[in-house]
Amino acid sequence: MSYIKESFLLTTETAEKLYYEYAADMPIFDYHCHLPEKAILENKQFSDIYEVWLSGDHYKWRLMRNFGVDEEYITGGASNKDKFLAYCRTVGTAFGNPLYHWSQVELETYFGCTLEINEKNAEQIWEQCNAFIKENNVTPQSLIEGSNVAYLCTTNEIFDDLSTFEEIEKKNYGFKVYPAFRADKIMNIEADAYLTFVGKLGDVKDLDALERVIEERLQAFIAHGTVATDISLQRVCPIPSREDAARVFKSRMEGNPVSLSEQEIFKGYFTYFLFSLYGKYDLATELHIGAMRNNNSVMLNKLGPDTGYDSIAEDNSISNMSRLFDRLNSEGCLPKTIVFNLNQKMNTEIMSLIGCFQDGSAKGKMQFGPAWWFLDNKVGMEKHLADLTATGHLGSFVGMLTDSRSFLSYPRHHYFRRILCSYLGEMIEKGEMTGDLALVGEVVKNICFNNIVEYLGVKKNG
Amino acid sequence: MSYIKESFLLTTETAEKLYYEYAADMPIFDYHCHLPEKAILENKQFSDIYEVWLSGDHYKWRLMRNFGVDEEYITGGASNKDKFLAYCRTVGTAFGNPLYHWSQVELETYFGCTLEINEKNAEQIWEQCNAFIKENNVTPQSLIEGSNVAYLCTTNEIFDDLSTFEEIEKKNYGFKVYPAFRADKIMNIEADAYLTFVGKLGDVKDLDALERVIEERLQAFIAHGTVATDISLQRVCPIPSREDAARVFKSRMEGNPVSLSEQEIFKGYFTYFLFSLYGKYDLATELHIGAMRNNNSVMLNKLGPDTGYDSIAEDNSISNMSRLFDRLNSEGCLPKTIVFNLNQKMNTEIMSLIGCFQDGSAKGKMQFGPAWWFLDNKVGMEKHLADLTATGHLGSFVGMLTDSRSFLSYPRHHYFRRILCSYLGEMIEKGEMTGDLALVGEVVKNICFNNIVEYLGVKKNG
Amino acid sequence: MSYIKESFLLTTETAEKLYYEYAADMPIFDYHCHLPEKAILENKQFSDIYEVWLSGDHYKWRLMRNFGVDEEYITGGASNKDKFLAYCRTVGTAFGNPLYHWSQVELETYFGCTLEINEKNAEQIWEQCNAFIKENNVTPQSLIEGSNVAYLCTTNEIFDDLSTFEEIEKKNYGFKVYPAFRADKIMNIEADAYLTFVGKLGDVKDLDALERVIEERLQAFIAHGTVATDISLQRVCPIPSREDAARVFKSRMEGNPVSLSEQEIFKGYFTYFLFSLYGKYDLATELHIGAMRNNNSVMLNKLGPDTGYDSIAEDNSISNMSRLFDRLNSEGCLPKTIVFNLNQKMNTEIMSLIGCFQDGSAKGKMQFGPAWWFLDNKVGMEKHLADLTATGHLGSFVGMLTDSRSFLSYPRHHYFRRILCSYLGEMIEKGEMTGDLALVGEVVKNICFNNIVEYLGVKKNG
Repeated sequence: MSYIKESFLLTTETAEKLYYEYAADMPIFDYHCHLPEKAILENKQFSDIYEVWLSGDHYKWRLMRNFGVDEEYITGGASNKDKFLAYCRTVGTAFGNPLYHWSQVELETYFGCTLEINEKNAEQIWEQCNAFIKENNVTPQSLIEGSNVAYLCTTNEIFDDLSTFEEIEKKNYGFKVYPAFRADKIMNIEADAYLTFVGKLGDVKDLDALERVIEERLQAFIAHGTVATDISLQRVCPIPSREDAARVFKSRMEGNPVSLSEQEIFKGYFTYFLFSLYGKYDLATELHIGAMRNNNSVMLNKLGPDTGYDSIAEDNSISNMSRLFDRLNSEGCLPKTIVFNLNQKMNTEIMSLIGCFQDGSAKGKMQFGPAWWFLDNKVGMEKHLADLTATGHLGSFVGMLTDSRSFLSYPRHHYFRRILCSYLGEMIEKGEMTGDLALVGEVVKNICFNNIVEYLGVKKNG
Repeated sequence: MSYIKESFLLTTETAEKLYYEYAADMPIFDYHCHLPEKAILENKQFSDIYEVWLSGDHYKWRLMRNFGVDEEYITGGASNKDKFLAYCRTVGTAFGNPLYHWSQVELETYFGCTLEINEKNAEQIWEQCNAFIKENNVTPQSLIEGSNVAYLCTTNEIFDDLSTFEEIEKKNYGFKVYPAFRADKIMNIEADAYLTFVGKLGDVKDLDALERVIEERLQAFIAHGTVATDISLQRVCPIPSREDAARVFKSRMEGNPVSLSEQEIFKGYFTYFLFSLYGKYDLATELHIGAMRNNNSVMLNKLGPDTGYDSIAEDNSISNMSRLFDRLNSEGCLPKTIVFNLNQKMNTEIMSLIGCFQDGSAKGKMQFGPAWWFLDNKVGMEKHLADLTATGHLGSFVGMLTDSRSFLSYPRHHYFRRILCSYLGEMIEKGEMTGDLALVGEVVKNICFNNIVEYLGVKKNG
Repeated sequence: MSYIKESFLLTTETAEKLYYEYAADMPIFDYHCHLPEKAILENKQFSDIYEVWLSGDHYKWRLMRNFGVDEEYITGGASNKDKFLAYCRTVGTAFGNPLYHWSQVELETYFGCTLEINEKNAEQIWEQCNAFIKENNVTPQSLIEGSNVAYLCTTNEIFDDLSTFEEIEKKNYGFKVYPAFRADKIMNIEADAYLTFVGKLGDVKDLDALERVIEERLQAFIAHGTVATDISLQRVCPIPSREDAARVFKSRMEGNPVSLSEQEIFKGYFTYFLFSLYGKYDLATELHIGAMRNNNSVMLNKLGPDTGYDSIAEDNSISNMSRLFDRLNSEGCLPKTIVFNLNQKMNTEIMSLIGCFQDGSAKGKMQFGPAWWFLDNKVGMEKHLADLTATGHLGSFVGMLTDSRSFLSYPRHHYFRRILCSYLGEMIEKGEMTGDLALVGEVVKNICFNNIVEYLGVKKNG
């Protein structure tokens, strides 16, 4: 038996009550993830524990590199089993790291394996989990449904074929799959493949044409159930004139390179354009800021992006974000916005800024998104809750997501829910808030599920 | 009975002892607030709980907006009662927010109402508090005297008429009211009304004249009891030459607009000038940095400034602050200074910098001001104490203030005192500091009251 | 008896077990300090408690200034005894400050004095400690050996005479002393004495010659046992072209002053050069960033540098650090690197960045150095552990150092070890990690000593 008990992370009796009576059974709305919709539809059984657990998870790869494991055993030519053993050896002493918890919980939740993960037990875990996979039909759908997921939003490029969503819709699964609209590949004008990306949208010659075709694609997405959109930026750039942005775009489409200041111009304008467009269609915007990507060019060349070589950026964003939100608000097209911030030092700046753009149009129109990526851990979540409640209203919060590429990540929702219940339970037991558990329990249920359903308005589409 | 008990926020028995034996009965010196001196003198009874509790408090307004309450029920045309009900509904589930505590404590302290504030109890609270107000003579003076306030510093514009302070002085109240000197309206050279503001000082044509008239106004303030001055800046600007500042001022007085860099020049010089002047008269300077104001222009046009649309700035200040303090120190005119910092990420930068300008001229000549505005909450105060003690000396600290526009805010002093006693009580019970409560209690009493009395030298004026 | 008990800082029974069974008896590797090697060799007995405890410790001086003590009693003409009394009075109420703990522990550890330090006991402590010094042969060697130190790295200027290390080596002490290689005086091209410093390296006319002679000096250091190198920077500068750096250096050597941008050019290049060189010889690089030095020019002129007038800088470093590490890594010469960061707000930026340059060449090739200088306190260490484990691997960590100029600072290693054991003990008792103490204990022993021995490869030299 591992160290994970029923009361895992629940620090008081009140927390246990709140979790088991209000939070545990609430469905999951995973409103931002990177699951491939095709894999959901294909629904193939996994071959071994390595494939489903390690093969695509760059969080785990990073941890192994931190422990000095050779790349051969991470993304290299070693066997699935040897890679698995290397990971178990690594995570076995990674005390305090979120993967130490998540890995253990994932094995228990999905493969019934309660052995503590470490070097000594690694062989036995390998056997047990693989036997479980063989005996049980472990597939994407079984994992999603077994996790009580009601809705999930995949992240789709603007030019993605959406027919898979139609097929999924016909299947009548126990859960809904909506594509989230993401135009980052059209934002990142400096990319080598930029003209190819734009080319997928048709014959686009200028900014007018670009804006038209983006709106058409957005309409197509909405017809397939889209309720949310994504924007990812290292930092928010100032808004330039439309003329300047049009000039930069035209020049780039003619094959010219773009300078750093031209990139800023285009991104500044394009961010503003996308926000206005999402505002027009009343679609929530999920703004992700603060990642500095692809720091290690040797490994970028070897493995490509999203392989564990990103980090937290230091760039200021608040002044520009203030002007962006103010301009959109003045023009009546500021959409519901969830700001996901990767650099904790900016938490209170962002919390206090979004508080300036709240209004009666939605409960928590401007959201401070949950602890994300490098912050998606116990300390990060606790700090998120502390910073959110210090200047905002907990009752409006739309709660957790996975942001994951893995079908095994849903326990993170429960990880968050336990921490939320402990946060409240401690205040209750210390006499710092009401002991009326029915009242508190409603708030818990709202944060787990009801708030995000209401916020994204899925009733309309669902 | 609400969740507020005698031991509220007191986490150990030692904390209870420290609070009740040393802190609770100490008088209050509210050395920075925004109370209108005229209202103190007029001393009118309040009409209902809405007027005294909600009508002017933009902290509460923000919380309602965060919860999706329509502006109609905040600053709009709804009735006092409906606004009150909307606030009770809002605050009832704002767990973790300081208003959740303050609101409850204020109702209990000043209106004897111990019902938990929430949607269900709202009607009853409305009735109870209004009945209390009718039965008792609840006025500004009764609230201040009932709170054991010995001294308070209002915040006054440089051109304010000071005769009200003379009348207050004659009345022999149980407390003293001193005007703090604030020249921000003369600092903010970009303001539309700048020429009007300067015009109130007389016929000022150039920087020489401006400096002369400011010094005269300061002398008038000192004659009315001034012991402290205020400066508020988004960030500290570099010090330019006096010639450049004189040129910018002259140009502005001739009706020209000022560029961003000209603003920096003037503010950089004027900050330096004010500090030197305050140093000359040995007046403590309260420097407030880190606010980004008026983010929402729609609401600024509708409601004006100070209505809940400010946020925390990200601007760097430390390098410029270092040069400012060093220059003043080299010239022998660095005044006692209290730095109020709004952006926690800069706490340790500021703490370590002011430590470089301490000397034998005062106990804690350079002060790290208490957790303020967006940081004025439990987590903010705990972090303030941790950051202050890590590189500074707790025993020198001048303690808490309200910074409030409300006559009901004095419980915040006790909120802080409880947190201070818990901070010490936990270290004592964990064996991390002396158990000599008499010694510790003296430090507590000093932080509550004695240090600020000594620091501001009110004996001389009082 | 003072408040320091056996269980000091050990918050659980498990923590006590971990500390006393695994951590307490591990030797110390003080891999970065500022002890003068000559004093170690000379080994003179100290004359009184003031000399060994207060005379050179600018941490203690700062605290006294924070408490308003006159400089006369700090670095001025007052007697040793009066200065000692002033410090005791100061530290007696400095609750929460690390010196409050360290001072008490130092007196108990090295002088058997268990009286609580405060104004009342000061006289008696003065007598007791001085009697102890007279009765016992208290010398640098006795203090180091009595502290179970196995290795220590002094910090040496590139042009230092290394013969003292040869003599120490011959003495067969119970500990090894290695010089760490530091070229900062050659980095800081703006210094008045720059030409004198370069002159100590011989007849250096251009960058080619400079690089040659630096490599020769490094080889001489390695022959004397050097296993680590130091670089200290306010911030990491961008890497310019070698031509530009050569031009700036040449101009400076001709006696010209350097502009700010020229300083940046030279420092950017020189940092890159040093890193490559250390990579070539497989020497760990200790990069210290984030100090803003000599803020108070009056006191700089009076007392010189390193007298308590430095503070924490605000400068951004991450983008430049990313490019520096990436360039070195691409060229195959990124050394093992320990980043000591002085500004906590950047902790997670740095943790996530160095995670992008880990590989199989070492366990934790890129290290997030322990809480240092202004962060070297309980809260700083706890935050360091939280931030390190959130995105890194605790098991790879190379642990604590003193960075001290004092022979009495080794208890800081135990201070850290106790906090480490409490960090783990709490997670164990809360059910957040394995209860297998043998497994956990190995990790503790590695962090205390084994990891740094392996990391610096001292077996080869020792």
